[in-house]
Amino acid sequence: MPKRSEEHLEARRQQILDGARRTFATYGYEGATVAKLEEEIGLSRGAIFNYYPSKYELFFALATAQQAEALEIWQEQGFEGLLRVIAEENPDWLGVYLEHARHLRTDPELRKRWKNRTPDEEQTARNHLTALQARGEIRDDVSPDAIGLFLGLMVDGVALQTSAGFPVDVDLVLGLIRDALAPRK
Amino acid sequence: MPKRSEEHLEARRQQILDGARRTFATYGYEGATVAKLEEEIGLSRGAIFNYYPSKYELFFALATAQQAEALEIWQEQGFEGLLRVIAEENPDWLGVYLEHARHLRTDPELRKRWKNRTPDEEQTARNHLTALQARGEIRDDVSPDAIGLFLGLMVDGVALQTSAGFPVDVDLVLGLIRDALAPRK
Repeated sequence: MPKRSEEHLEARRQQILDGARRTFATYGYEGATVAKLEEEIGLSRGAIFNYYPSKYELFFALATAQQAEALEIWQEQGFEGLLRVIAEENPDWLGVYLEHARHLRTDPELRKRWKNRTPDEEQTARNHLTALQARGEIRDDVSPDAIGLFLGLMVDGVALQTSAGFPVDVDLVLGLIRDALAPRK
Repeated sequence: MPKRSEEHLEARRQQILDGARRTFATYGYEGATVAKLEEEIGLSRGAIFNYYPSKYELFFALATAQQAEALEIWQEQGFEGLLRVIAEENPDWLGVYLEHARHLRTDPELRKRWKNRTPDEEQTARNHLTALQARGEIRDDVSPDAIGLFLGLMVDGVALQTSAGFPVDVDLVLGLIRDALAPRK
């Protein structure tokens, strides 16, 4: 495939994702009809569904891309950087995740797929925690899974409060999180 | 008012709240139509709205009652007990809170009312934290507000994951939470 065409495909894909994200944030997951997706993206449903076969696949692609981005931010800016980015995220977009929780709760197949959506990144995250432990930056008397759950709950708490329109003063809790994970003497 | 009648009113109120909670959990907040509320509660809309003037007031009454209950559990069983209770809560009912986040985000008046829904309990919670600090059970080098936010984010994280159908193994993180709040040497 000529390079020009690959670039075109990639630009088109990005146009679709950007427009879909705006549509979800504006109307919520349920309210983002195909007509509204077409309008916001600026492409016909045929063109859109050529890239992503359903509305759910659009959300899924956005969510997994965001997961990858979050992992990078965490690795580059630390957990503090990640929490700040989430606290500054668009509350309407975070709200789409909350709507999505209902789908996961009521659909075991979807839940399984969601849980396994990023196996490589799960492993990368675990490796990152293990490396932090090996470098003595965080405690190593607790399993990476426990620390991962602890951090994941914090992330979800910040996402939930932000999405409800209550800004979270992340600085207030960073010291407590640091102390929870500090190497034991 | 004769005692018999007071008891009757109270029983009726409880019947309404119990039925409303079941309806919300089953159909979600949006899906809980007045017809479904009538059916599940076993009373006419006239009788129901005589006690609570709107569907939102029903949810608000349930949420504030649950807040009071959570405060009691926290005071009696500690934060560990509270987290366990939330992790064992009905995911469908927790999901109603997530749906509610959208209302709060998009309605500043509602958000203000929600934030101020339990001023006395906010104060009780702050007093409880201050007492724990004074007794040396938790650190006193950090403000009660910071500790309250930290614990609130944990609660919301557990609620969000539980409501999405992912059971939270609370035991995995209790030690980390304890260590975050332990008095500094």
